[in-house]
Amino acid sequence: MDFGKYVAEIATRSLKASRELAVAGGERRSQALLSAAKALREGKDAILRANAKDLDQARQMNLTSAMLDRLTLDGKRIAQMAAAIEQIAAQADPVGQTISASNRPNGLRIEKRRVPIGVIGIIFESRPNVTADAAALCIKSGNACILRGGKEAINSNLAIASAIRAGLRQADLPEDCVTAIDRTDHEIVTAMARAEGLIDLIIPRGGEKLIRAVTESATIPVIKHYTGNCHVYVHAAADLPMAERIAMNAKCQRPGVCNAMETLLVDKAVAGKFIPAIAAKLARAGVELRGCGESCRLEPQMKQAVEADWYAEYLDLILAVRVVDGIDQAIEHINTYGSKHTDAIVTGDPAAAQRFTDRVDSSSVMVNASTRFSDGGEYGLGAEVGISTDKLHARGPMGAEDLTIYKWIVTGDGQIRQ
Amino acid sequence: MDFGKYVAEIATRSLKASRELAVAGGERRSQALLSAAKALREGKDAILRANAKDLDQARQMNLTSAMLDRLTLDGKRIAQMAAAIEQIAAQADPVGQTISASNRPNGLRIEKRRVPIGVIGIIFESRPNVTADAAALCIKSGNACILRGGKEAINSNLAIASAIRAGLRQADLPEDCVTAIDRTDHEIVTAMARAEGLIDLIIPRGGEKLIRAVTESATIPVIKHYTGNCHVYVHAAADLPMAERIAMNAKCQRPGVCNAMETLLVDKAVAGKFIPAIAAKLARAGVELRGCGESCRLEPQMKQAVEADWYAEYLDLILAVRVVDGIDQAIEHINTYGSKHTDAIVTGDPAAAQRFTDRVDSSSVMVNASTRFSDGGEYGLGAEVGISTDKLHARGPMGAEDLTIYKWIVTGDGQIRQ
Repeated sequence: MDFGKYVAEIATRSLKASRELAVAGGERRSQALLSAAKALREGKDAILRANAKDLDQARQMNLTSAMLDRLTLDGKRIAQMAAAIEQIAAQADPVGQTISASNRPNGLRIEKRRVPIGVIGIIFESRPNVTADAAALCIKSGNACILRGGKEAINSNLAIASAIRAGLRQADLPEDCVTAIDRTDHEIVTAMARAEGLIDLIIPRGGEKLIRAVTESATIPVIKHYTGNCHVYVHAAADLPMAERIAMNAKCQRPGVCNAMETLLVDKAVAGKFIPAIAAKLARAGVELRGCGESCRLEPQMKQAVEADWYAEYLDLILAVRVVDGIDQAIEHINTYGSKHTDAIVTGDPAAAQRFTDRVDSSSVMVNASTRFSDGGEYGLGAEVGISTDKLHARGPMGAEDLTIYKWIVTGDGQIRQ
Repeated sequence: MDFGKYVAEIATRSLKASRELAVAGGERRSQALLSAAKALREGKDAILRANAKDLDQARQMNLTSAMLDRLTLDGKRIAQMAAAIEQIAAQADPVGQTISASNRPNGLRIEKRRVPIGVIGIIFESRPNVTADAAALCIKSGNACILRGGKEAINSNLAIASAIRAGLRQADLPEDCVTAIDRTDHEIVTAMARAEGLIDLIIPRGGEKLIRAVTESATIPVIKHYTGNCHVYVHAAADLPMAERIAMNAKCQRPGVCNAMETLLVDKAVAGKFIPAIAAKLARAGVELRGCGESCRLEPQMKQAVEADWYAEYLDLILAVRVVDGIDQAIEHINTYGSKHTDAIVTGDPAAAQRFTDRVDSSSVMVNASTRFSDGGEYGLGAEVGISTDKLHARGPMGAEDLTIYKWIVTGDGQIRQ
């Protein structure tokens, strides 16, 4: 089979559909989303049947319980998907705004106007809700999308995409605005990443291995979401009970996700008081601690951390702990070992907060809040098509506006260049 | 020689410098630019001596006269470089603005703040003024840059970079904010394009072959400037004398550049009148015409165009001409054969202008103006670090603001996630 040709045929239909969607107007795009949400609710039984098929196969493949949990849909999860789509439908139209405009001395008017990107390829693993979230954000922003989900979720993904396509049809928009690929061959991923002129952007969501493989083969732009090695820094002027609440929440509330804390940095000014107290609480929550020399001295039950611990994204009940010699060492540690995802300071000193937010080079920098808030829903984006750890185009949780670009519109009355 | 290590050593210094530059404040960055402009003017003789060395070698390498012209510096060109730097210094600071901000129901404040990208690698061919323009735009936007110019211009580039580094030192900023690579090995290009974690963005400027080679090997983001296959469409409601002036200017004023017209589309409603008149003028200007069947019928001296002509970027006194059956066929032609660079409509009908600007998917879309205006200087950006034909991050002429990204700053008073 010629996978390049297979992808090109799909993407050619997507491109055609994207051009119609781009000029359909915000109202019709929102209408399509409301119809899609309705179709998802009404199609609940069919989606659950498709999901049951996936779950049967997954059990035969001996997937871990965490993977099975991600894959499982129920009435409540389908209702949540539909509600997210309705929230996205209600947002302001990100397309068509004038970003800036100026008049030049020769009379030309130069306008930068926000437009959709075109066709977006999304490559993801086993969570079927990505189909709904990504398709909705793409429709909102006037982009066609090609969704290539993991083989574990293929039946669920096709059923969800089918409901969304019904919504597009009801709004008199081409159903090819949303295409879920119905094959699971791995070669399709590479073919998508090399479909220059047809697909404008690839967003891979999943493990680091998947993302590296896509990046290596890609000739079209890729927005990456690598690891989330997130830090909480407890500053000398921190409110220590607040720091304790934030650290416990950032580590324990959902340890398997990318915005969970992986390293706790404690200022030496408060380490003697803070570390024994938090260590006891974390131990009670089942967290294994790996500390620097000074941390281990303060809390002798701690295991000694090695260099690799500072880089680690555990995604588990493990935490690295380091005592730092002031805010600049904390910033240096984060910029050296972190993954530019989400890092927080706890402090009562506004100057320290500003130094930290100015100098920590991460997509999200938090002051007196848990890293767990780094999320499209929590930022008011309705959902997210990914969390970018890149520094191009979009950073952090990506909503509908992040799926747009601009064009320059130059209006004259016959100007020619001298 | 280990080129990966060589580039990593340079880029590590650049990264360190970039962090200092990012927080230095707009005033100091502007001060550095003014000092750099002064150093360029004062260093004129040294720069011209270095340029003479390059020109000597170029003549021995039998470079074309066009290439020699691009490479040649004189007092006027150096003064122009310095003036462009001063113009960039006078622009508003693109760093630190709040792009958007909101307060969430849980009391969190979510702010999107504009920040520099970090370290930018610029790979270019023989025009030494790129060194000055690119370095100035990077300094303005708080980014360190690594400049890898063509071997033909190496002495000129090093001399210009040395003046700019003197400007940085005078403003008490690290001179490693601007590094011109002093080796010409081709492997350096590949090593730069794969310097993940050290270089954040590569901008290649030059021929399509160079850009494709960089893109193929890159693992870090690349903003590309492929071909400029630009169109002028003469609509049924065009002011024909204006259309003639625009077409002549777009084709003939400087045919070897990317924003020159390569295909003229003429509405059938005016073709009978317009084509014979413009063909005579173009012929007098030495332009070879290659027409569609209908164009050749109207102007029998025209050569018959073949399919490849519609895709061609001639960069020469050659023009493809097609009669189209209305505005939608013109838009379809441009979206099919064009390179998403710059396309113009000449029309007196505002509805036609809007249809064209809405539907032509190019980085610049012009109404009643010559495609030759697609340029950072003409758009008021002072200079340009490139013209993006990509649809990610930046499109069209890229100025200082296009070298920034944002970070999310989240401020709370102890919020944790439920």
